[in-house]
Amino acid sequence: MAEEAAVRAQAETVRRLKQDKADPDEIAKEVAKLLDMKAQLGADEGKQKFVLKTPKGTRDFGPKEMAIRERAFKAIISCFKRHGAEVIDTPVFELKETLTGKYGEDSKLIYDLKDQGGELLSLRYDLTVPFARYLAMNKITNIKRYHIAKVYRRDNPAMTRGRYREFYQCDFDIAGQFDPMIPDAECLKIVHEILSDLQLGDFVIKVNDRRILDGMFAVCGVPDSKFRSICSSVDKLDKVAWEEVRSEMVGEKGLSPEAADRIGEYVQLHGGLELIERLLQDPKLSQNKLAKEGLGDMKLLFEYLTLFGITGKISFDLSLARGLDYYTGVIFEAVLLQQENEHVEEPVSVGSVAGGGRYDGLVGMFDPKGRKVPCVGVSIGIERIFSILEQRLEASEEKIRTTETQVLVASAQKKLLEERLKLISELWDAGIKAEMLYKKNPKLLNQLQYCEDTGIPLVAIVGEQELKDGVVKLRIVATREEV
Amino acid sequence: MAEEAAVRAQAETVRRLKQDKADPDEIAKEVAKLLDMKAQLGADEGKQKFVLKTPKGTRDFGPKEMAIRERAFKAIISCFKRHGAEVIDTPVFELKETLTGKYGEDSKLIYDLKDQGGELLSLRYDLTVPFARYLAMNKITNIKRYHIAKVYRRDNPAMTRGRYREFYQCDFDIAGQFDPMIPDAECLKIVHEILSDLQLGDFVIKVNDRRILDGMFAVCGVPDSKFRSICSSVDKLDKVAWEEVRSEMVGEKGLSPEAADRIGEYVQLHGGLELIERLLQDPKLSQNKLAKEGLGDMKLLFEYLTLFGITGKISFDLSLARGLDYYTGVIFEAVLLQQENEHVEEPVSVGSVAGGGRYDGLVGMFDPKGRKVPCVGVSIGIERIFSILEQRLEASEEKIRTTETQVLVASAQKKLLEERLKLISELWDAGIKAEMLYKKNPKLLNQLQYCEDTGIPLVAIVGEQELKDGVVKLRIVATREEV
Repeated sequence: MAEEAAVRAQAETVRRLKQDKADPDEIAKEVAKLLDMKAQLGADEGKQKFVLKTPKGTRDFGPKEMAIRERAFKAIISCFKRHGAEVIDTPVFELKETLTGKYGEDSKLIYDLKDQGGELLSLRYDLTVPFARYLAMNKITNIKRYHIAKVYRRDNPAMTRGRYREFYQCDFDIAGQFDPMIPDAECLKIVHEILSDLQLGDFVIKVNDRRILDGMFAVCGVPDSKFRSICSSVDKLDKVAWEEVRSEMVGEKGLSPEAADRIGEYVQLHGGLELIERLLQDPKLSQNKLAKEGLGDMKLLFEYLTLFGITGKISFDLSLARGLDYYTGVIFEAVLLQQENEHVEEPVSVGSVAGGGRYDGLVGMFDPKGRKVPCVGVSIGIERIFSILEQRLEASEEKIRTTETQVLVASAQKKLLEERLKLISELWDAGIKAEMLYKKNPKLLNQLQYCEDTGIPLVAIVGEQELKDGVVKLRIVATREEV
Repeated sequence: MAEEAAVRAQAETVRRLKQDKADPDEIAKEVAKLLDMKAQLGADEGKQKFVLKTPKGTRDFGPKEMAIRERAFKAIISCFKRHGAEVIDTPVFELKETLTGKYGEDSKLIYDLKDQGGELLSLRYDLTVPFARYLAMNKITNIKRYHIAKVYRRDNPAMTRGRYREFYQCDFDIAGQFDPMIPDAECLKIVHEILSDLQLGDFVIKVNDRRILDGMFAVCGVPDSKFRSICSSVDKLDKVAWEEVRSEMVGEKGLSPEAADRIGEYVQLHGGLELIERLLQDPKLSQNKLAKEGLGDMKLLFEYLTLFGITGKISFDLSLARGLDYYTGVIFEAVLLQQENEHVEEPVSVGSVAGGGRYDGLVGMFDPKGRKVPCVGVSIGIERIFSILEQRLEASEEKIRTTETQVLVASAQKKLLEERLKLISELWDAGIKAEMLYKKNPKLLNQLQYCEDTGIPLVAIVGEQELKDGVVKLRIVATREEV
């Protein structure tokens, strides 16, 4: 069959790339292609060739991964609650039109559902657009909420780096008309608290403002119509060098070389309050209304961050642009600075672990009368954080328990199943976490071994003699002490 | 436009049905049709006619609903943990072929994703099939796990009764080769514990066995090829009368009237141990190998349930069939017996709130070599439980808090924003749940009102005099006491 030959050829390609130690991303791409081809082949030939896997870019979480995941969630949720947030949940899919026109160039990554009659639906791409839809639909003008849920992007997965097609977002947002920069400062404080709490190593939170960017584009001579597309180019600066971004601006996007060079001067600037002061004096920028507003608010933000005592980790960075269309004011992104754990052999490149900003226009896009609800929020990139925590745990010798069982109900002799069932039932009813082996006559050694393997600290041993005496022997697994 | 005329006609239909106080289900169906037509019209005419809603059969959970939901989850999870379960998670979608051939007549309700290139995907229909896929893929032969997640069914929603297209399932399953009926009994114990703990009123857990059903079909003269389809008919007995089921068997499914009548005699039987003993003596049934096996195990199950002390709520019921194809042994379903709360004006009809059974063949369907892993599990129908808890809370005067904030940082005079920011930052860093109003100069009365509204018990008041003295005034909202 032609398809089989194609699969063999693809398998050969993969083999060669691996042999040549090619770029891991390229190998991953070709492997994915191979798996797709195999799956296709399997489907054509019926059940026998069925490929047993999760969909591309997704994964299962086993008990061990779940234990790590729940630890991270716990830290994040307790921070959100500490800041007085309520919690909401929305459906995993939305009407297709709810998502239309919100994500700019990224819209092509949205998963659509098949038209099976009825409404046209898409899987949510983030939690921000559903939140705005929720506010408009319920006419809520004032809320502080968090939302932790999975989102979906048909992106090219790089799973070893924590980039998936199905992944969790942990969002905290403040909606409402308030005095400037107070909620914005709180969002940055939250990022600071969470990253410190999770002990992920050194980090920096880059901050900028869409108004400063737009003002900068204007004074550099970028035509209004090109603002968003030039902004997308600037957004790539965290991954590629300025020279490449410049040539994209001038080549693909048709910007004049002079304008690009002027942008180039600005985007290399980063610093703190003193940079803000300097730009407020900048002869060109200070003449632009938007830039002036943005810089004024940035100054205020830094004052509040000083009161919070966290400016040490904050960098006002003119190269920060953020890809999404809906931001209107302050934007920010937290990046880890280095691999914190020297025991890990292959350091993971993790990049951004949190991001967010102000989006004052999004809710108005959903309101029939266009009523605006100003919002600012932050999203924690939990998958990358999982990758780090998993690697760290693997490197350490720490053994994590995946259950909370306190006691195993065991028997020393045969034919004591009934007694074990009675005892365990009493323990459960008393709220005690208890297990037993599902065997009529388990060996005592096997029962003790089970405790060792799963970390159960206590064994309640039922025996003939104890039954006569009306007692149960309790044994501490670690010390073999008995009472 | 023709479409607009159609929408108007549909709106008129809905109006008329409402006026005539027609069957709520019919009204709901026509309203859904109207909304679909409107949505279609909106899409055709651009943004202006955009319908602001969640997809059909789905809903948002606001802070209040989430508080109720989390209470219920807490009770369920603590029960699962008490029984020593680990936790896993799987992707929301699976390869389409993973779900193929597992659900019998219900397969038409599966949501498919649009073919956007690459793999063909479907949203999960339950948590059982992904669990079996997970076991086979990771070659796990022995696990006790729970999984709480959303599943998706393109069913006709009846949202007031807790039937949705997106809904949570709370599953607990025991996989592995064990001595008979011990894990099965534990599943029933778990249902008993959870329903008692949630105080949902009186309930009964119906129990049967697929082998008893199949044996019964055989001795009644049902041809082998009709077993599954006649089983589907029997499954409807909890909703429709025997006469209707009988005519479906004889009419649509082509069963002989005599065979149907023989089935009719069996399916009205329900009871406890004495019924099992009687059927073990039944001249026809006791000759059938399958039925005999099933009845023997049922007897053992009842012995274990007696040791657990829960037979009072268990009914061996020959009319229980369960719709899904994959069950192979014990099956069960818990139903609430009556509306427990007399204060509720319109009682919700809730029906089944938990169900499950033994499926020894499912994992083998995924294993390339067909290796079987026996499994038994239970699924808690949490949406119906939510409906009851929500109604009950609405009827009661109880006010639920949606945040956990302990203290509001307030100021008595103007111009104290900086001091408030400093103080709240210190509280957060000390792990205290604190909020403040996002205003430069909030009025004290507004700040106290906010505490009353949201149930914050304490206010920390910053004032000129206190600043001079280096202290903060702490006020208990309820009693107005100050320290």
